[in-house]
Amino acid sequence: MNALGPDATVGILGGGQLGRMLALAAARLGFKCHVLCPDPRSPAFDVVRRVTEADYADIAALDRFVADVDVVTYEFENVPAETAMFLSARKPVLPDPKVLAITQDRLVEKEFVNGLGIATAKFAPVDSADGLTAALAAIGQPAVLKTRRFGYDGKGQMILRDGADPAAFEHLGGQPQILEAFVPFEREISVVAARGSDGAIECFDVTENEHQDHILKTSHVPAAVTPAVAVQARRIAETIAEAFGYVGVLAVEMFVVRDGGGHAVLVNEIAPRVHNSGHWTIDGASVSQFEQHIRAVAGLPLAKPIRRGRIEMINLLGAEVEDYRGWLTKPDTAVHLYGKTGIRPGRKMGHVTRVFPEP
Amino acid sequence: MNALGPDATVGILGGGQLGRMLALAAARLGFKCHVLCPDPRSPAFDVVRRVTEADYADIAALDRFVADVDVVTYEFENVPAETAMFLSARKPVLPDPKVLAITQDRLVEKEFVNGLGIATAKFAPVDSADGLTAALAAIGQPAVLKTRRFGYDGKGQMILRDGADPAAFEHLGGQPQILEAFVPFEREISVVAARGSDGAIECFDVTENEHQDHILKTSHVPAAVTPAVAVQARRIAETIAEAFGYVGVLAVEMFVVRDGGGHAVLVNEIAPRVHNSGHWTIDGASVSQFEQHIRAVAGLPLAKPIRRGRIEMINLLGAEVEDYRGWLTKPDTAVHLYGKTGIRPGRKMGHVTRVFPEP
Repeated sequence: MNALGPDATVGILGGGQLGRMLALAAARLGFKCHVLCPDPRSPAFDVVRRVTEADYADIAALDRFVADVDVVTYEFENVPAETAMFLSARKPVLPDPKVLAITQDRLVEKEFVNGLGIATAKFAPVDSADGLTAALAAIGQPAVLKTRRFGYDGKGQMILRDGADPAAFEHLGGQPQILEAFVPFEREISVVAARGSDGAIECFDVTENEHQDHILKTSHVPAAVTPAVAVQARRIAETIAEAFGYVGVLAVEMFVVRDGGGHAVLVNEIAPRVHNSGHWTIDGASVSQFEQHIRAVAGLPLAKPIRRGRIEMINLLGAEVEDYRGWLTKPDTAVHLYGKTGIRPGRKMGHVTRVFPEP
Repeated sequence: MNALGPDATVGILGGGQLGRMLALAAARLGFKCHVLCPDPRSPAFDVVRRVTEADYADIAALDRFVADVDVVTYEFENVPAETAMFLSARKPVLPDPKVLAITQDRLVEKEFVNGLGIATAKFAPVDSADGLTAALAAIGQPAVLKTRRFGYDGKGQMILRDGADPAAFEHLGGQPQILEAFVPFEREISVVAARGSDGAIECFDVTENEHQDHILKTSHVPAAVTPAVAVQARRIAETIAEAFGYVGVLAVEMFVVRDGGGHAVLVNEIAPRVHNSGHWTIDGASVSQFEQHIRAVAGLPLAKPIRRGRIEMINLLGAEVEDYRGWLTKPDTAVHLYGKTGIRPGRKMGHVTRVFPEP
């Protein structure tokens, strides 16, 4: 693919805060954006040249959308395979939709990761209540039962402790599932990496994440890990990006566990998109994850990220957003609100990024 | 005025790159924007929820525009007085249009500045060819003859050297003019200051500017001035903002001249808006001039700006923009393109900001 000219239009599937921040980054580089999303109140609709309010399966709408754009990208991993196929027959879709086929299925994703020689928690497929009994015998307890597809923020999963009930399979809807060994992690970390169309890879610094009810609450950078763990975490993200032939930004969520005198790093999940744990890069680095993604899908060179200090990113969840004025008065604190209408518990309404001098 | 809620709409008069960057800053804070501009290819139209393509004197369009917004601000100082009056009868217009009445007229502006005890170059009004002869006798030569209104980027002015021709008055269209003593300056500097609706003032660091054919080419921060000059320059900007009862961002352009063993600071011009010499704040400071302006007109607290290093901002003028890929590969360099269609010599197409470690 040739690089886009500065008057090009970037098509974005999905109109949430990630699409919004992608569009804001694209605007800095002079690009126009066109967002397709079924929700009329999509936050991304407010900051782009053109919007298509339509279902992802609406072929007529997809046809108009793709005719108007020069490249298509997406803000979420559950883009239907047929949608991606339809669009990619007409315009470049980046990252390549083959990545979606892998990351949309937890079982396929974990097998892919293991196939690269990268460790994960032990896991086993579960296709029936009997299968769950067998998997529990193989994996042990506690373990986490998850639907293979369409889970996020803790939805579609349950922890199974001693004496687990095989009926859990039905509780998760009887669809194909995966049983994963529970990981007694020391820390949760992530690496947000960008790979350009020229194959160059740039990782942001390893980020340490804390979740609240399965939803990201805070990120700290740099993560409090040993240099060896940091090197290994970056190498894992690079290996995955390379194996995908990836173009764009991806995030790899990992567990750091005690392993004898040292540590082991296990991959938990791959997000083939910009990621909440990379929001700190807007204010805490010389280039943001959003701009890196746009540079990559536009065929432009990546930037080398430079961190501005020690960073803390705090999600404003639900009613927490009401205190945004308090955050506006704090030193070296950037406040981001997503323009969402309607506060719901746990809903990501905004975030703040605090930059502290490096100790 | 009460603070705007996060779902409010900010109305912006003018759709150039300043309006565009104001809208991008407003989006971070969750605000929607509505831009009114007569030019269908306005760069700001690409990044906002709603646009009105209309003349500033189109009362019907202004009426629809003002009904849709919660506050009105502007990206340029030549908003017609009638437009400002019409709008301010319906919604808050910030900064207060009375500031426009002063800054739209070079003579009134300079008298206002002198009235605050702040120095400018010597000047005299010129209303006729005879008046020019008299003014030349009073001011001396070389001197600069300028139209009192509607000049920018060197347009509407000419330098008069020894033996100046009084016919210059007619060359500038015979409209009311001002003759200013030519200032043999050591440096050109500016201070971009924000004043909140609560009266708090925050200045960005003093910026040193170099012009090419009267158009800003580069800014360096901090300016290479003595601490005494820096203090004086900030105090001048604060005094002017205070005297206006200003709400929003303004820029004061100043000359630094040798004065015996020390220096004097003369005000050249006030821009009652965000300013090209403040573009470095997007990437070079913890808060940008654009966000400070939006915070101010939205009734939110200002941030205290922290500079990220030694800064160089370079305007991409005309065909210089074609080398933007080269800039993308430079370390710690942010590239901004304005999405303008059509390269013309001297046209501001984008800018780059480079951050260097403080020596």
